[in-house]
Amino acid sequence: MPPTLDDIREAAIRIKPYVHRTPVVTCESLNEYVGAQVFLKCENFQKVGAFKFRGACNAVFSLTNEEAAHGVSTHSSGNHAQALALAAKLRGIPAYIVMPENAAQVKKDAVAGYGGQITFCKPTLEARESTLAKVVENTGSNVVHPYNDERVIAGQGTATLELLEEVPELDVVIAPVGGGGLLSGTSIAATELKKGIRIIAGEPEMADDAFRSLKSGKIIPAVNPKTVADGLLTSLGTLTFPIIQQRVEQIVTVSEKGIIDSMKFVWERAKIVIEPSAAVAIGVLWEHKIDLAGLKIGIILSGGNVDLAKLPWL
Amino acid sequence: MPPTLDDIREAAIRIKPYVHRTPVVTCESLNEYVGAQVFLKCENFQKVGAFKFRGACNAVFSLTNEEAAHGVSTHSSGNHAQALALAAKLRGIPAYIVMPENAAQVKKDAVAGYGGQITFCKPTLEARESTLAKVVENTGSNVVHPYNDERVIAGQGTATLELLEEVPELDVVIAPVGGGGLLSGTSIAATELKKGIRIIAGEPEMADDAFRSLKSGKIIPAVNPKTVADGLLTSLGTLTFPIIQQRVEQIVTVSEKGIIDSMKFVWERAKIVIEPSAAVAIGVLWEHKIDLAGLKIGIILSGGNVDLAKLPWL
Repeated sequence: MPPTLDDIREAAIRIKPYVHRTPVVTCESLNEYVGAQVFLKCENFQKVGAFKFRGACNAVFSLTNEEAAHGVSTHSSGNHAQALALAAKLRGIPAYIVMPENAAQVKKDAVAGYGGQITFCKPTLEARESTLAKVVENTGSNVVHPYNDERVIAGQGTATLELLEEVPELDVVIAPVGGGGLLSGTSIAATELKKGIRIIAGEPEMADDAFRSLKSGKIIPAVNPKTVADGLLTSLGTLTFPIIQQRVEQIVTVSEKGIIDSMKFVWERAKIVIEPSAAVAIGVLWEHKIDLAGLKIGIILSGGNVDLAKLPWL
Repeated sequence: MPPTLDDIREAAIRIKPYVHRTPVVTCESLNEYVGAQVFLKCENFQKVGAFKFRGACNAVFSLTNEEAAHGVSTHSSGNHAQALALAAKLRGIPAYIVMPENAAQVKKDAVAGYGGQITFCKPTLEARESTLAKVVENTGSNVVHPYNDERVIAGQGTATLELLEEVPELDVVIAPVGGGGLLSGTSIAATELKKGIRIIAGEPEMADDAFRSLKSGKIIPAVNPKTVADGLLTSLGTLTFPIIQQRVEQIVTVSEKGIIDSMKFVWERAKIVIEPSAAVAIGVLWEHKIDLAGLKIGIILSGGNVDLAKLPWL
C-alpha cells in the first residue's frame, strides 16, 4: 500500500527529534536566470548531507522494540547506507550494511564512522542481494530498502510537508528521480496537501529510465547508466512506479552540461554546496525545455555530498 | 571619531530594506572538531556575497540628496567595488570605481554588471590614488574608503547586532582582519552590547601586519603579503587601528594549511561556500593555538566569493 498523507504526517512527528528542519532559501540571480520564483528546500543541510536520512529515520523509529532489537540492514554504497547507520545509532540498535568491496574508501569510512557493521561483497546486484539475505538470516534484522519501502517513502515526503508549510503558494514542485522514493513521497505530500499543484521530476538524459518507464507504462530498468548525477543511477521500484504514474505530471530529462552548469551556478550565486543529483532538479528550469515562466516553484535539493577533489566542471 | 553603538543601530535601520538578514548556522561536526559551540554568521549569503555590502550601503544611504547627486567613488579591485556599485545603483546614483587595469576580468564584469563606471589605472597604489583624485575632481563624488571610514565601519557592525540578537549568550566573537573595517564594527557592536565579551581576530600568518601592529603599538604596513586569503592583504587604517587596540583581545595568526583545511571542512560538512578570508576566522579554532574549549563562539563568515575553477586544495 502506498503511504497516505497521514502516514507522512506521522513520519514527520516520529522523526522530528532527530532530523534537521532544513531551511528554504531563495536566490535572486537564479530567479532572474530561469524566469520564475524558485524556493530551494535545502536537504543538502540535512544530517548525513541528504534527504535520505528522513526515510531511514522513519523506518528505524517505526519498528517495535522487539523488531528493533534485531537491528536493521540494507545493501547500499551511497547516502542511504550512512543514513541508515546513523538512524540505527540514534536508536541504539545495530545496522548491518552490505557494501560492494570496490566502494569508495570515503564511503566505507563514513558508514563505519556512524557505527554501521559492514559486510563486503562482490560488486554485482546478485552478490549484494545474496549477501544481504545471509546477513538477515544470521541476524533477524529488518531490511530497509533505499526507496521501495513505504516507511522510507513516507519519511522522504516530510521534506515537502515542511516546504509547503513555509511556502503554501507554490504552483509546482520539482524533485530529482532515481529509484523514486523522494519523488513518490514528494508527490503524495504535495498533491494531497494542495489540489492542482504540479509535480515535475528531473532525470539525467544519460539515465532516463524513469522517463521511458512513464512513457511506456511499464518499468524499464536502467542498463549501466553513466551520469555525473551518481545518486540517480537506480531504476524505479514496484512501489514507487505506480505512485509516480498517478501523481507526477511529467519527467523532464536534463543534459550532463545542464546538470553541471546549474550545479556550478548554485555554488557561485547561492553559495551552497549541492551534489549533481540535486542540480538535476534545477536543470529542469535551467534548460527551459518546458514553460514554467513566472511560476512559484519549489525544488527539493536532495543533497550536498560531493567529492571536493573531483568537481565536474574541472 | 569612531562610530558608537548608536551609529551602528542607525546603520541597521538605514540599510535594512537593502541587505539580507543573513542566517546564523551551526554544524555539529565542526563543534566536535574544535571542541566548542560555534555559531556561523553567514555573510557569504549577503548580497554581493560578502559583508562589504553592509558598509557600502550605509555610506551610500547616509548621504544627503545633494551629496548623493554627485555619486560615490572608490578604488578597489575586490568585493568593496561591487558592493559600492550595487548600493549606488539601488539609490539611483552613479558609482565611479577606479580599478587596476590588471584586475581579473570576472571582477571588472561584476562591477560593470552592477552599473559601476570603471576608470582603469596602472596597478600601483600611487596610480590608484591619483586616478581617484582626478575622478573626484571631475565628478564631485563622495569617496567611500573600503574600511577607513566611519560609515563603513558602522555598517559592518550591523552583522554583529544581528548575531547577538539571535545568540545573546556568546562568550567570544571572532572575525578576520585585513584593513580592520569588519573587525572594528564587530568589536564596537559586541563590546558595547555585552560587557566582558571577548573579541578575537584571525589573520593569515603570511599577512600578519595587524598582529605585528597590535604588538608594537603602531601601524606596520603589509609589504607584498602573499596568502590564499586575498581579501586580507590590506593594512590597518588610522581609524580602525585605535578601535582594534582598544577592543580586541588578541589577533591569532593562521597558517595557509589551517586556512585551506578549515575552508574545505566547512564546504564538506556545513555545505556552504566560504572564501579563504572567511576561513581564517575558523582557522583560529582549527589550529587550537589558544584555548577556547567549551565556549560559545560567534564567527563572522565574511564572504563566499571564490573562483570555482581554482580551488586552493586542488
